[in-house]
Amino acid sequence: MTRGTAEPPFRRIGIVGTGLIGGSIALAARRRWPGVEVVGTPSRSGPLPEGMLDRTTADVAELSLTSDLVVLAVPVPVMPGLMRTIAASGSAALVTDVGSTKRGVMRAANEAGLPAFVGGHPMAGGEKPGASEARADLFVGRPWLLIEGSAGPELRERFEQFVRALGAVTHWMDAAAHDRAVAYVSHLPQVVAAALMNAAEAVAATGPHVAGKAFGEMTRLASSPPDLWQGICTENADFVREALQTFLAQLPGAGEDVGAWINDALQRSGQARGRWLARQGGTTGDRGV
Amino acid sequence: MTRGTAEPPFRRIGIVGTGLIGGSIALAARRRWPGVEVVGTPSRSGPLPEGMLDRTTADVAELSLTSDLVVLAVPVPVMPGLMRTIAASGSAALVTDVGSTKRGVMRAANEAGLPAFVGGHPMAGGEKPGASEARADLFVGRPWLLIEGSAGPELRERFEQFVRALGAVTHWMDAAAHDRAVAYVSHLPQVVAAALMNAAEAVAATGPHVAGKAFGEMTRLASSPPDLWQGICTENADFVREALQTFLAQLPGAGEDVGAWINDALQRSGQARGRWLARQGGTTGDRGV
Repeated sequence: MTRGTAEPPFRRIGIVGTGLIGGSIALAARRRWPGVEVVGTPSRSGPLPEGMLDRTTADVAELSLTSDLVVLAVPVPVMPGLMRTIAASGSAALVTDVGSTKRGVMRAANEAGLPAFVGGHPMAGGEKPGASEARADLFVGRPWLLIEGSAGPELRERFEQFVRALGAVTHWMDAAAHDRAVAYVSHLPQVVAAALMNAAEAVAATGPHVAGKAFGEMTRLASSPPDLWQGICTENADFVREALQTFLAQLPGAGEDVGAWINDALQRSGQARGRWLARQGGTTGDRGV
Repeated sequence: MTRGTAEPPFRRIGIVGTGLIGGSIALAARRRWPGVEVVGTPSRSGPLPEGMLDRTTADVAELSLTSDLVVLAVPVPVMPGLMRTIAASGSAALVTDVGSTKRGVMRAANEAGLPAFVGGHPMAGGEKPGASEARADLFVGRPWLLIEGSAGPELRERFEQFVRALGAVTHWMDAAAHDRAVAYVSHLPQVVAAALMNAAEAVAATGPHVAGKAFGEMTRLASSPPDLWQGICTENADFVREALQTFLAQLPGAGEDVGAWINDALQRSGQARGRWLARQGGTTGDRGV
């Protein structure tokens, strides 16, 4: 991402929810197009970093009417109400979201009657939430998944340009394929990390002295916010359950020789991981894989 | 670790197995005590980095007779034969190992009749094996687990000094406590990483585009060497099986609400991880936790 002089795809950006993701979109857009106007809702977690926004407003209808791009960067359960407010305002803005599950969001946008919606999911984040953690380069080299909604082809393309200009790598997919994939690569790892950490309590006396880098990595997610994950796993319960069953079937059976099992499992997982890395291309280093 | 002028605890160090760990011990000892003599067996994976050793010898009996510390940095299954060779040579050297399981090693040292043995397990490593990856700072801030063997108190203390001087944090424990703890924090994560990667093959079409940093971290171990892990899991099969059962009991049950489950699981795992990090003290950053 570089400072550019090209025409911005959107001149007035409204951000509902100025946390880590919403704040990073504001910073990234302003760095890319210094002339763009960015308006956002006030932060609930303290004052916003200086220069992040041109102004704040708590009035979402007013924000929508004065923006040509509205980004919903709030928890998924809050979105339906906001969508109804925006639809009722008569705003013609392109509306998008950054929710980590997509079937419910697309349904809600449809039910609210939003005339120009594109679903989005930037695969970026950080250990800590909040606008104070926001970074203009948060999306560089990271996937930003896009789901076709009510917006027409011209607006869809314009939005894809916007996201790419923030440095992200775009992929279009349908909502169910998205939710099934994230169940395997994001929600299941979350379940597993919590269970690994809780299992390790059996060796709480010696374990902390014996744990190396791998255990630290495998349990990093065990410190994630419980409420956030309750929402995600409830929303995506069917696919999370499928992923968990698939995972259980991959573990050694009750009578199986674990030595022989792990040799076979690693033969396959090493090859599978190699294929994934190849498909992920140039962005792998950034993603720690 | 700093270059020191203090008297080295051992003046002549013999290293059997000059791979990543053996090579790093050689480099670290020479940096700490430039006057120390380090002899090692030839590398099987190509020429050794310049300056790593004073000389190489393939004759383990000769190496033992000319050393006052012998480090066995070879796979666990190879150790019993080497121990018999060293015992038969009549060497009075302190012998130690760096194997990642300890019950079998301690038994083998005992059966070989080694008069001065201390078991060891440096919790350090790297993505790639081989002497070319060796680093003098590999052990800085990392745990080095020690198991009391036939060596008397004076030699044990001298060896602990040696290990600390390489930058490691020492912990004494018994072989069974060690093997049980590593089953939970090292071997189980290995099993889980392979199964996660293999389960994700169900979404091979979309998964690579959706996978973020967490998936990369959670599957890094899925590319580990199958043969090495077959050896480790066979050696430690009973505790690996126990850890796996404990882990399975921590996962959501068949009829359980995954949303409510993850909220409760993360409440506990977040607290557990906080306690572990506190117990690990100042070395956590280095270990990626």
